[in-house]
Amino acid sequence: MQLGMVGLGRMGANLVRRLMGDGHRCVVHDLDPAAVQKLADEGATPASSMEALVAELTPPRAVWLMVPAGVVQPALDQLAGLLQPGDTVIDGGNSYYRDDIVRAAQLAEHGIHYVDCGTSGGVWGLERGYCLMIGGEAEAVTRLDPIFKTIAPGADSAPATPGRTRADGTAPDGYLHCGPNGAGHFVKMVHNGVEYGMMAAIAEGLSIIEHADAGLTGRTVDAETAPLREPEAYQYEIDVAEVAEVWRRGSVVGSWLVDLTADALARSPRLDEFAGRVSDSGEGRWTVLAAVDESVPAPVISAALAQRYESRRLGEFTGKVLSAMRGEFGGHAEKAG
Amino acid sequence: MQLGMVGLGRMGANLVRRLMGDGHRCVVHDLDPAAVQKLADEGATPASSMEALVAELTPPRAVWLMVPAGVVQPALDQLAGLLQPGDTVIDGGNSYYRDDIVRAAQLAEHGIHYVDCGTSGGVWGLERGYCLMIGGEAEAVTRLDPIFKTIAPGADSAPATPGRTRADGTAPDGYLHCGPNGAGHFVKMVHNGVEYGMMAAIAEGLSIIEHADAGLTGRTVDAETAPLREPEAYQYEIDVAEVAEVWRRGSVVGSWLVDLTADALARSPRLDEFAGRVSDSGEGRWTVLAAVDESVPAPVISAALAQRYESRRLGEFTGKVLSAMRGEFGGHAEKAG
Amino acid sequence: MQLGMVGLGRMGANLVRRLMGDGHRCVVHDLDPAAVQKLADEGATPASSMEALVAELTPPRAVWLMVPAGVVQPALDQLAGLLQPGDTVIDGGNSYYRDDIVRAAQLAEHGIHYVDCGTSGGVWGLERGYCLMIGGEAEAVTRLDPIFKTIAPGADSAPATPGRTRADGTAPDGYLHCGPNGAGHFVKMVHNGVEYGMMAAIAEGLSIIEHADAGLTGRTVDAETAPLREPEAYQYEIDVAEVAEVWRRGSVVGSWLVDLTADALARSPRLDEFAGRVSDSGEGRWTVLAAVDESVPAPVISAALAQRYESRRLGEFTGKVLSAMRGEFGGHAEKAG
Amino acid sequence: MQLGMVGLGRMGANLVRRLMGDGHRCVVHDLDPAAVQKLADEGATPASSMEALVAELTPPRAVWLMVPAGVVQPALDQLAGLLQPGDTVIDGGNSYYRDDIVRAAQLAEHGIHYVDCGTSGGVWGLERGYCLMIGGEAEAVTRLDPIFKTIAPGADSAPATPGRTRADGTAPDGYLHCGPNGAGHFVKMVHNGVEYGMMAAIAEGLSIIEHADAGLTGRTVDAETAPLREPEAYQYEIDVAEVAEVWRRGSVVGSWLVDLTADALARSPRLDEFAGRVSDSGEGRWTVLAAVDESVPAPVISAALAQRYESRRLGEFTGKVLSAMRGEFGGHAEKAG
Repeated sequence: MQLGMVGLGRMGANLVRRLMGDGHRCVVHDLDPAAVQKLADEGATPASSMEALVAELTPPRAVWLMVPAGVVQPALDQLAGLLQPGDTVIDGGNSYYRDDIVRAAQLAEHGIHYVDCGTSGGVWGLERGYCLMIGGEAEAVTRLDPIFKTIAPGADSAPATPGRTRADGTAPDGYLHCGPNGAGHFVKMVHNGVEYGMMAAIAEGLSIIEHADAGLTGRTVDAETAPLREPEAYQYEIDVAEVAEVWRRGSVVGSWLVDLTADALARSPRLDEFAGRVSDSGEGRWTVLAAVDESVPAPVISAALAQRYESRRLGEFTGKVLSAMRGEFGGHAEKAG
Repeated sequence: MQLGMVGLGRMGANLVRRLMGDGHRCVVHDLDPAAVQKLADEGATPASSMEALVAELTPPRAVWLMVPAGVVQPALDQLAGLLQPGDTVIDGGNSYYRDDIVRAAQLAEHGIHYVDCGTSGGVWGLERGYCLMIGGEAEAVTRLDPIFKTIAPGADSAPATPGRTRADGTAPDGYLHCGPNGAGHFVKMVHNGVEYGMMAAIAEGLSIIEHADAGLTGRTVDAETAPLREPEAYQYEIDVAEVAEVWRRGSVVGSWLVDLTADALARSPRLDEFAGRVSDSGEGRWTVLAAVDESVPAPVISAALAQRYESRRLGEFTGKVLSAMRGEFGGHAEKAG
Repeated sequence: MQLGMVGLGRMGANLVRRLMGDGHRCVVHDLDPAAVQKLADEGATPASSMEALVAELTPPRAVWLMVPAGVVQPALDQLAGLLQPGDTVIDGGNSYYRDDIVRAAQLAEHGIHYVDCGTSGGVWGLERGYCLMIGGEAEAVTRLDPIFKTIAPGADSAPATPGRTRADGTAPDGYLHCGPNGAGHFVKMVHNGVEYGMMAAIAEGLSIIEHADAGLTGRTVDAETAPLREPEAYQYEIDVAEVAEVWRRGSVVGSWLVDLTADALARSPRLDEFAGRVSDSGEGRWTVLAAVDESVPAPVISAALAQRYESRRLGEFTGKVLSAMRGEFGGHAEKAG
Repeated sequence: MQLGMVGLGRMGANLVRRLMGDGHRCVVHDLDPAAVQKLADEGATPASSMEALVAELTPPRAVWLMVPAGVVQPALDQLAGLLQPGDTVIDGGNSYYRDDIVRAAQLAEHGIHYVDCGTSGGVWGLERGYCLMIGGEAEAVTRLDPIFKTIAPGADSAPATPGRTRADGTAPDGYLHCGPNGAGHFVKMVHNGVEYGMMAAIAEGLSIIEHADAGLTGRTVDAETAPLREPEAYQYEIDVAEVAEVWRRGSVVGSWLVDLTADALARSPRLDEFAGRVSDSGEGRWTVLAAVDESVPAPVISAALAQRYESRRLGEFTGKVLSAMRGEFGGHAEKAG
């Protein structure tokens, strides 16, 4: 079927490529004319403006936004004036699900459908397909089924779940209508929260292995530093890159994240090009907020988020207060770094 | 080659089957004669005693122990009296790596080699192969290479790591000589710690999704319970079984653990057969102890361990103290459960 | 000066008593006439309705609300119609600071001042005084200074801070104008978050001491339960009530919370009257939400909140998913409780 | 009574002063002759060697060691050869309680008593008294009662616990015989673990208050950084020094640690002299190890320990792995610091 794509960054462009590869027709727009031209060269219909994009689409239209979170709202505002009742806008980015609820209501006033679609797969999605978590009215979501089916990885991308008996549903194809508006981004938000926790578990584990030589390196022992009591138990110099590689096969922790970690370590065993400052882009935070609101204990995901903050030195004032207290009660001077 | 297997529980028996399927000859022993007979029927050489098992093996012998952690030491003590210099014992269970160091030294006095081999794969290993993390002297480990190669999943079980340039090493086959004695179980220990963290992240995330209906169900509001401020944001009834299924393909959290979770939820969407008391069998604890000793922050794995303790109500006295304090300063009575 | 008090629960009534004891005149109202009568008997002017209360006060009036969070808004709505420009309403409860911002703006439309006042001290405040954290316009807060000064504990209630050189400020008296509207409840909110963390630290510590006999009691050892490796190191039967008592004097952890814990344990050494389900009433949650929003790592306060959730079995579904995974990969059955 | 003190650092010297002030006679030794001379000038009997110290004491002797953890063992070894059956050695430092068990057995072979005494109070103990947590045989501990009574703060240092009905016991005086050898240092160890948690709660809370201006300062918004959704809710510039001061009186978090924090912030409101690297000297680690061994969930104390590690950048490799993963799946470059 026909789809308009607004936003031709890596994700948007690859979605277009995957769709065209499966026979869909795409009209594409981006603020950067070069990005538009590049996809036009690959077979897409170029649109130099939002108006042009809408004009090229046949009602009922479907327009997919793949733009930074900060510009979704202006794009929707503009589209609200251009689209017709019965048309649909899909927000495929990482919007906060609470915004979806408001935005769906705004577009509904114009008779326009809104679909929120959490899209996971990163830079590998063109090849692997994208996992889609979708929210919106059934009618609008159903009409877009051919689009979602193409973008998703498809059932062949993994063995069938042995215990699954139900024959219906699109989840085995890699896309799921999760519920009304916001449900798609809600599930994607939590997906990213889970991602934070899994990443942290892997990274902590590899760090513990990397430091299994603690008994070899020696630790300065003074009144401010606990000695290592049993250095003989920490005499291992283990190749963490090879550990990540071996965990890829047959282990319980086997996962795409371990695959990627093995790849990163194969390229750069010490990861010296990184300083260890880990960004977070919102979904992890929102997952913690949801857990708090719902009264669901989420100590692991919460700790993973705090760890990212710590990695960026955001706990510095906390540390200063702690060092100040130690100075007060024990006369401890803070050690030089 | 020839291998003696002591302990024919699920893991031991399946290792034997996998070895025999690849042409190795196995001599098998277990305290349960029925377990021995069953594998004899499948082609193994039965041994009614440890002495018989040793007698059936040609030096230099290799004896694999796949027995509960609590009986490894007596088995080693017995083998120390039966084996000859040059023979090798492999401990394939979940022993604490510190015990390996002591045990290897004990056997070395008899000229016997000791190899610690962390074995991951659970009940699925017969089919998928087992991920092996090995510690010991190079000579002993190298001699056993054909055994490890058969047991491990093999390079074909996953795509090659794109960034990997080195051609040597067995990690891509699913087994790795990690270092001297203890290194194998050390890496397996941390593997299980990582497993705790990944499991917790997935379970917490699905729980947050399960409770996305918090605004529908209503929450008793009184001075002891915070109201849900924005119930309209928690109106989703999301099918967590389908979420687990959709995450299996194309998502960043795709993993064997998500595969298994999808399977469990497909069979039992509410998991009502479980009470939610989560056991731990040592490796997670030891991982936390190692992190503390090494001065490596591991907040996520630590939180995952504490969460398991909490799930078994082991924090009850802590809760009593907290409720008592609240009663003291605020006159708060503890709410009925 | 003169003050109207709405809400004569334990906190409200004791505030009135403390004020009258220092010569202030109080007009009091509560939905329960008996509560009104009781304070009238002690010298307060009774008011049978909000209208009556307002009528008894001389402009510029000051009305203090000490009512459950859920009824603050209706009370304010009613007062907005009864009070005059120049009057002031103080919300002394545990409202969310974000509501203060909205409410202050609503009352400002009527020319009425709004002051948010976080009030700490619990059931002991009548005797000890209350710590007050105040938000609002300087003019309104300053006018109420005599009220705050009486309610607060006063400088004599603790030794002066040795390093303090500034002579101004009311903080040494136990009350503080923290900033514009919301600042008072913001600081009170965080105070309670700190309280959660301190309480948890004390309770965990006492629990670790309570279980220092772990090596005496024996632990069932099976494949699902890690054995205690060194039972000889956990042979202590320590009297936790006496530990709490001894920590009250000279220790670094000396605190009012330890005082209260010692008291609770002196009355009931095993705390058997508690089940260990710990309530939370909002401020701890909000503190975590603020930390997440501000990008401040707060792993300790977050863990304390999650622990309270766990104590009320709110992580049950998480536990079920974890047990289900263990069943899937390892064939582990969940142990009976 | 008479006491020998070995180790005249701040703690040891002040213990001697407190003892002499109450009429006890002290024989003192330190490797630094100036330290010995200083106390001799104040009335102590100087001893230029361990032998001299022992010679000056009348049997049954009592020798208190107040030396760094690393030199306790050599000091004990030396004393074992100098003391007589019936004499007692007290280790007043922060030794690991497991060492006490071994050391007590070693000295018992010589008929010498060993007492482990956790001593809390820091640089303030001379004035406030020290909280003592004592382990050892009843006979030895009882004989030393006059010493402990003098060193401890005494019952007058805090109001009596209202609920306390038992008339016996020394806990209200600030010292407690906790149990057999090791019990004293066990309780002191956990005391310090509690201290870590309480300190962290206070420091995190003040940090959240310090950053209540997050909406004023602006946050760079890009694909790698979550925007602050409601900057209008974080517009407060709150004086954290005054907050610490006001919390000292009447609040639930009132504590010696808050007193000290208020003092530190009064002297240096921004704490710019600290970098925020927080040392740990063993007891917090050991507390976590004990909690893990005992199967007691201690998420708060564990998080406080991990936070100290993070503050010293010990999680750097973890952060590198996390950034590497993000680069792999999302093409995210690590942001400059």
